[in-house]
Amino acid sequence: MPCLEFWFEFGSTYTYPAVMRIEKLAQTAGVTVDWKVFLLGSIFSEQGWSDSPFNIYPAKGKYMWRDLERICTALSIPFVRPSKFPRNGLLASRVACWFASEPWISEFTKAVFSANFAEDREISDPEVVHACLNGLGLDGPRLLEQAQTAESKAKLRTQTEYAKSLGIFGAPTFLVGEEMFWGNDRLEAALAWARTGNKSSSNILSNQDAP
Amino acid sequence: MPCLEFWFEFGSTYTYPAVMRIEKLAQTAGVTVDWKVFLLGSIFSEQGWSDSPFNIYPAKGKYMWRDLERICTALSIPFVRPSKFPRNGLLASRVACWFASEPWISEFTKAVFSANFAEDREISDPEVVHACLNGLGLDGPRLLEQAQTAESKAKLRTQTEYAKSLGIFGAPTFLVGEEMFWGNDRLEAALAWARTGNKSSSNILSNQDAP
Repeated sequence: MPCLEFWFEFGSTYTYPAVMRIEKLAQTAGVTVDWKVFLLGSIFSEQGWSDSPFNIYPAKGKYMWRDLERICTALSIPFVRPSKFPRNGLLASRVACWFASEPWISEFTKAVFSANFAEDREISDPEVVHACLNGLGLDGPRLLEQAQTAESKAKLRTQTEYAKSLGIFGAPTFLVGEEMFWGNDRLEAALAWARTGNKSSSNILSNQDAP
Repeated sequence: MPCLEFWFEFGSTYTYPAVMRIEKLAQTAGVTVDWKVFLLGSIFSEQGWSDSPFNIYPAKGKYMWRDLERICTALSIPFVRPSKFPRNGLLASRVACWFASEPWISEFTKAVFSANFAEDREISDPEVVHACLNGLGLDGPRLLEQAQTAESKAKLRTQTEYAKSLGIFGAPTFLVGEEMFWGNDRLEAALAWARTGNKSSSNILSNQDAP
């Protein structure tokens, strides 16, 4: 079955609709999803940014919040603008990185994104991460502890360095082999690419009409 | 008839497919297009950028060129990566601003974008601008002269300042009243918004499947 690497960061706004949509769309396309969390802040800091570009450039930020609101409305995804942005997703990222192969990875990721972008909860708070795990019938405190070992921390650092080496500069990013697609609005194109492997197919513009 | 303001900058890469597509899509949607040229460099410089962000941030630039190539292939729009980027569109902008209400505005704009992104020609060269006008059966040298009066130069400056005051931060930008859509990939959504005026309609995601 063709595979799509889904590179995500818990603080990323446009990753929220992508996380909520990807499973169903991938299933329909017959594509498996490889959940790859990374820390975008580490990549931004190399570009000289100590904050989200949506905060550094206010006009762009104002547009993004309105655009995201429109997208969530149209997709019937609940959305509340977080009172703090961006939130630090380090703890959740360690869980999502260490347990990436667990069957609950997608549900956990959706729970954390919903906490941040639908419930305005502080995802850097261990209690919130516990609650996201507990809500899936898992042992939150035990899993979070396992995700905080030196080995787990190193895995996330390595994965973030690997993202950087792949040329990833934002989230969400979808990779089909070396073919990169950036942004929630490229999810359909990435899945079409994964499904057909046809590099010149017009179906990468499933989201656009012909000229 | 509902109206869409199309804010464009001649050096902008993603504006190229938008320019080539907009007329047909707008006609189908029953929406008129108001062609509004502006100088993005002036807005970028206020953000501290003296160059295109696609040059300042190489990973983003590398992705953009590949993404644009894929989009043009899928839309069957000819594309040659320009040997110089970004090109200075000041002269062409003065023509497009001064003569914005002329019936040939769209054909002229398409000719200049094609010169830059399909033929790799230097659009800052008056001879190239002449050729774009002459090719439409117009008097290139005379029109370019008319577009270089103090009054015409002031009109473009004012229009760029107005773009800035509207919160425009990139190109292409589509405005339906105060509702803003940024990027070639938002053209369909902007047209749907103009057509229906329905602020919560799922048809703004004509380019996306349901979640």
